[in-house]
Amino acid sequence: MDLYIGNKNYSTWSMRAWLVLQHFQIPFTEHLVPYDDFLPEQNFKQTLAKITPVGKVPVLKHQDLIVWDSLAICEYLAELFPERHLWTQDIKTRAYARAVCAEMHSGFMALRSLCPMNITQDFTQLGQQLFHENADLQADIKRIEEIWSKREYPKGFLCGNEFTIVDAFYAPVVMRFKSYGLPVSESSQNYMQTILNVGAVKAWIEAAQQES
Amino acid sequence: MDLYIGNKNYSTWSMRAWLVLQHFQIPFTEHLVPYDDFLPEQNFKQTLAKITPVGKVPVLKHQDLIVWDSLAICEYLAELFPERHLWTQDIKTRAYARAVCAEMHSGFMALRSLCPMNITQDFTQLGQQLFHENADLQADIKRIEEIWSKREYPKGFLCGNEFTIVDAFYAPVVMRFKSYGLPVSESSQNYMQTILNVGAVKAWIEAAQQES
Ligand SMILES: N[C@@H](CCC(=O)N[C@@H](CS)C(=O)NCC(=O)O)C(=O)O
Ligand SMILES: N[C@@H](CCC(=O)N[C@@H](CS)C(=O)NCC(=O)O)C(=O)O
Repeated sequence: MDLYIGNKNYSTWSMRAWLVLQHFQIPFTEHLVPYDDFLPEQNFKQTLAKITPVGKVPVLKHQDLIVWDSLAICEYLAELFPERHLWTQDIKTRAYARAVCAEMHSGFMALRSLCPMNITQDFTQLGQQLFHENADLQADIKRIEEIWSKREYPKGFLCGNEFTIVDAFYAPVVMRFKSYGLPVSESSQNYMQTILNVGAVKAWIEAAQQES
Repeated sequence: MDLYIGNKNYSTWSMRAWLVLQHFQIPFTEHLVPYDDFLPEQNFKQTLAKITPVGKVPVLKHQDLIVWDSLAICEYLAELFPERHLWTQDIKTRAYARAVCAEMHSGFMALRSLCPMNITQDFTQLGQQLFHENADLQADIKRIEEIWSKREYPKGFLCGNEFTIVDAFYAPVVMRFKSYGLPVSESSQNYMQTILNVGAVKAWIEAAQQES
């Protein structure tokens, strides 16, 4: 199994797929394709053109199969390793988890465009300013905090006491809230701490720090 | 099982979930929440506020469960009715199908914003103009045609000889290509005809025509 990713400091979608492989101890080889300006003639697009039809990371290669989207990668891994419970076990809670992942996958555009992930930087001042000036950003943060507040256990994960795919989907948001010092509730701070204590998350952050 | 949808003439995400329920003969009650300007005080948002946390359609209600995203709805239905094969049966082809659905779910922004679905209208002239002026639109169409060209059978569906979730995801694109008269290959025209011959698609189109 091979996973192609972007820089650990910046690449949120890569982080999601990587955390799932790493946390569930699925053996894989990592290939880091460094970011550039994403111009067709530069290394990033040239390298990916040999592997994937869409020129984006992450990409999973397993034997003759190529999967070029983070959510599709997670679903495939969940099917390959049913006994590891990559999704939560109850069918209805799993439907809930998928709806919450789908929101991330297709939305939160203000947060994603205004506050790109940059793990090693402190943007607290910029974050305050963006937050006060931008109603769409406020709405995104409000909705994310609402999702996080639905946790069953105060120090738990989004669907119970175990890290599952849905937490991988929100882990890059934790990194953003942290870097941009966005004002969040105590409950959200607890969730952020829960995520920051996950071994795979720590390993990703350390590697991001090495990178720069 | 209850499905909340928007107008059949306009609502692409509603169409996807509805086609899957209808095609796979899953009994459901349809609730049409007519579009307005999506202002908080208007009927659309007020009605949805009672049911869903995000104020968008489609929404599936099954007993005490609410699922508020088209892809999450399809995944839940596929799990509830495994014997109906809502996804294709081979695990790798299914991973491929999910990657292709994920592209639709998170992308094709130029097509989605420039050519909103409007089943009953003929926008051929506008379509020509948009196509010639807009490189991003051209790129979206090129990628969609590439996906469609990967079919195994010339008159078949995206993953073999049966309609599955991935075809539901591209059915609204067929409606757009048709209304806007976008210039497509013969292979794409064949796929469009295959989709237009599906009973559930015909039923949706007829209802859209009744609506206006
Ligand atoms: N929906 C895709 C999004 C992937 C994506 O946008 N990846 C970014 C890096 S985090 C990328 O490769 N961008 C390159 C580009 O946009 O050209 C997924 O979930 O994997
Ligand atoms: N990712 C969602 C998107 C749903 C969506 O955007 N639905 C549109 C109608 S097709 C909507 O309800 N728009 C209302 C709004 O944006 O306020 C899904 O796949 O279901």
